[in-house]
Amino acid sequence: MATARLAHWAYNLTFADLPPDVVRAAVRSFYNWAGCTIGGSRHEAASIAHDTLSPFFGPAHASLLGLSVSADAQHAALLNGIASHVHDYDDTHLDTIIHPTGPVASALLAVAELHAPVRGQDLLLALVAGIEAECKVGLAVWPEHYDVGWHITSTAGSIGAAVAVGKLLGLSPEQLTHAVGLAATQVVGLRDMFGSHTKSFHPGRAAQAGLLAALLAQRGYTSSAQALEAKRGWANVVAATKTDPQAGLQKWIGFGEADVGVGLFTAAAGKGRWEILRNSFKPFPCGIVIHPIIDACIRLHRDMEAKGLNAAHIQTVDVKVHALVLELTGKRTPVDGLQAKFSVYHSGACGLVLGRATPREYEDDVVHDPAIVSVRDKINAHAQEGRGADAASVTVVWQDGTMLEKHVAHAAGSREVPMDDAMLEKKFLGSCAPVLGDAKAKQASAALWGVATVHDVASIIQVLVMTCSAPVATVEALVECKDMDE
Amino acid sequence: MATARLAHWAYNLTFADLPPDVVRAAVRSFYNWAGCTIGGSRHEAASIAHDTLSPFFGPAHASLLGLSVSADAQHAALLNGIASHVHDYDDTHLDTIIHPTGPVASALLAVAELHAPVRGQDLLLALVAGIEAECKVGLAVWPEHYDVGWHITSTAGSIGAAVAVGKLLGLSPEQLTHAVGLAATQVVGLRDMFGSHTKSFHPGRAAQAGLLAALLAQRGYTSSAQALEAKRGWANVVAATKTDPQAGLQKWIGFGEADVGVGLFTAAAGKGRWEILRNSFKPFPCGIVIHPIIDACIRLHRDMEAKGLNAAHIQTVDVKVHALVLELTGKRTPVDGLQAKFSVYHSGACGLVLGRATPREYEDDVVHDPAIVSVRDKINAHAQEGRGADAASVTVVWQDGTMLEKHVAHAAGSREVPMDDAMLEKKFLGSCAPVLGDAKAKQASAALWGVATVHDVASIIQVLVMTCSAPVATVEALVECKDMDE
Repeated sequence: MATARLAHWAYNLTFADLPPDVVRAAVRSFYNWAGCTIGGSRHEAASIAHDTLSPFFGPAHASLLGLSVSADAQHAALLNGIASHVHDYDDTHLDTIIHPTGPVASALLAVAELHAPVRGQDLLLALVAGIEAECKVGLAVWPEHYDVGWHITSTAGSIGAAVAVGKLLGLSPEQLTHAVGLAATQVVGLRDMFGSHTKSFHPGRAAQAGLLAALLAQRGYTSSAQALEAKRGWANVVAATKTDPQAGLQKWIGFGEADVGVGLFTAAAGKGRWEILRNSFKPFPCGIVIHPIIDACIRLHRDMEAKGLNAAHIQTVDVKVHALVLELTGKRTPVDGLQAKFSVYHSGACGLVLGRATPREYEDDVVHDPAIVSVRDKINAHAQEGRGADAASVTVVWQDGTMLEKHVAHAAGSREVPMDDAMLEKKFLGSCAPVLGDAKAKQASAALWGVATVHDVASIIQVLVMTCSAPVATVEALVECKDMDE
Repeated sequence: MATARLAHWAYNLTFADLPPDVVRAAVRSFYNWAGCTIGGSRHEAASIAHDTLSPFFGPAHASLLGLSVSADAQHAALLNGIASHVHDYDDTHLDTIIHPTGPVASALLAVAELHAPVRGQDLLLALVAGIEAECKVGLAVWPEHYDVGWHITSTAGSIGAAVAVGKLLGLSPEQLTHAVGLAATQVVGLRDMFGSHTKSFHPGRAAQAGLLAALLAQRGYTSSAQALEAKRGWANVVAATKTDPQAGLQKWIGFGEADVGVGLFTAAAGKGRWEILRNSFKPFPCGIVIHPIIDACIRLHRDMEAKGLNAAHIQTVDVKVHALVLELTGKRTPVDGLQAKFSVYHSGACGLVLGRATPREYEDDVVHDPAIVSVRDKINAHAQEGRGADAASVTVVWQDGTMLEKHVAHAAGSREVPMDDAMLEKKFLGSCAPVLGDAKAKQASAALWGVATVHDVASIIQVLVMTCSAPVATVEALVECKDMDE
């Protein structure tokens, strides 16, 4: 059945089974995750969580990216997971809108140092196993599971993290089966939390839950051998409004070796689909459906500069979008940066006024900047039938009657216009330089691009953290420390 | 709305609001929980979890009951929660079959030592707040939530634990609201795990999740202010098959002060219902629906002894029961002790052959004892319409034609025949003496009965743990240590 099939698949997967494009996708996913995590490490949500939990830290075997302190592996998985998602800047599996690398890599990195040396190849293999697992179980319950209100990144993410850690630790198929069960029974993430700190808690807790599941299963803690497919197992329970969750499991995971369909890639059968090849990267740190509008607005900003047009004299902005944009990101007057990530109005205004939408544009002071608010309130968004979710048209009219229009057929970062390595690197350096400093950010970037060939991943991790002359107790103190470094 | 109402209710509740029978119920619930936890502390599930997690322990501020080692508060909540449920011997809120004290008390005890001194009154007040919270949210989604496959003890338990810890820490209504949200988004427990180690993991993880939620909320981590009632909040998501989860929230929690109904007790309005008064205690460590059969079989055993009848010569055993017994506990050939807890056949055989059903009778060697297996396989169980869930009839026929019958209208431990303090104490000593030794078990019992008046709960906790001359690394080593003590 599906649980055993998934466990055996992960157990049997080898690095040699991974085609070059899958390895490249894994490197890019890991690279982007590290950048997002370092960039998010000083965010308020990450800082509060860190300062709340540091009194409970066990032996410091695992690094907290972007900081100078380490934690026990379980807390590192949680805190790196929070940081990785807090800017809504991480990757997206477009078929399920799972952000796949956060839960999986946050758990993996925590054990990579605990069980050093771990080769880069083995880390990437485990990462692929985990990402495939979470995306397949996500596909099995999509879309009803998401529609009813589950944050699919974390509900599926704990299973992906368990499979990844189990793979890295070399668990047997039976242990992997129990790990999947232990992860499946920890269902974290209600969508009502979007716009609060708890959204980023979800992938963090999923990473920690998956890690815990694999560690317990390794020692013989038992769960169910049919956790995914049983009558009162994961699929039926978390997709209770779906007509036939079993059919989803059969289609995307399969119930036996011969039964692969579009499911898990099987080398022997030469069949299956790699979900990691469908992973995409965000150029902007906000809800992905806003991206075509931002893309259009940034292009308009360039035109405005060329023509000497002033945003302050804009009269109206008319935006035509997919209906989902208004449903998911229709916040007219966001009160803070986290809410602004779900405001097409704030995001569009940043594009027009500033010509960019980086994490800086989602800080509270920018959200309340009169120049932004003024343009934001002139934006009208309309849903248009038949429009793609990655397309948008923006029309700007000035007080003197001047009009500019821009149509984006496929947003930057979409499947049709993916971010290339140079764009990913620019994004990485933009996120990391304010935390690590320019020189160390470049060093981190170079080290991460080489992950596939390192003999010990710990050698990379050491350039992803801060080095302070003295230990620091809080994230605030660390910012001081960073200043001393520079 | 419901989330804010629950938070304000918990914030405003005082010890003076608790009627004497509620305080007594809280003392009995805490007493029974401590006995179950000490009794479960050496179980395989608890030992594996302990030995897996001890390398991650932070500063040892919180006791692990029945052991000689302490842990950080978060691990203590998890491990005590596992131990409290592992024998299926803990309390039951019969309206929802929530086992209410495990998640709540396991979280509370962990912070009681961290924030010592905590008065017994304050601990009991927080315990009542937590138990009321979890039972009310459970009632709001009952029975569809349980029927679809959620282990309601842990799904509701994390919310109860968060409210309890939040109350003990003196959180503001706003902080309590966020704590409820952070707990609600961690939905732990699929029923498919029943019969495996993971069943007891559920209340442990719920305790830990609720504790974490309260700690984060205390430091300003935000969730949602409408986590229970929002469109994509807890009730709608975890009871997706229920017609109107909102009506459940309104009925059992209320949407405002005036709106109490049968919901949370409100001193000002003099209305509401105390769920803790509906809590019951198990005389037998197994699925509660088996209890009337065990009760009847133990009585038959006494008749057999009086009449000199030998169980080895039994020909058939005919059992008439409520339909739920066969659905929940119909395991004909349990393979181990955990499965035997869900076998009416094994349990009935223990009653007939041994005249008892204590934790000892659910150890693997008893499950495979030929004398038990032989009688077990002669038992036939039939569902009979109109029979109460706490009633059973058992007819035994011997090879020589002798027949004995016994009818139990209400099982021991049911609402009609509750366990009195003497029975609870006998159960407590039976669970604790094999762990703590006779003298210390009696000392623990006396200390716990006095919890309402102590100035520092830590003074009680110190007699609930082992004292070893040297630190021990594993639970196995601890058993050695115990032997040295005696």
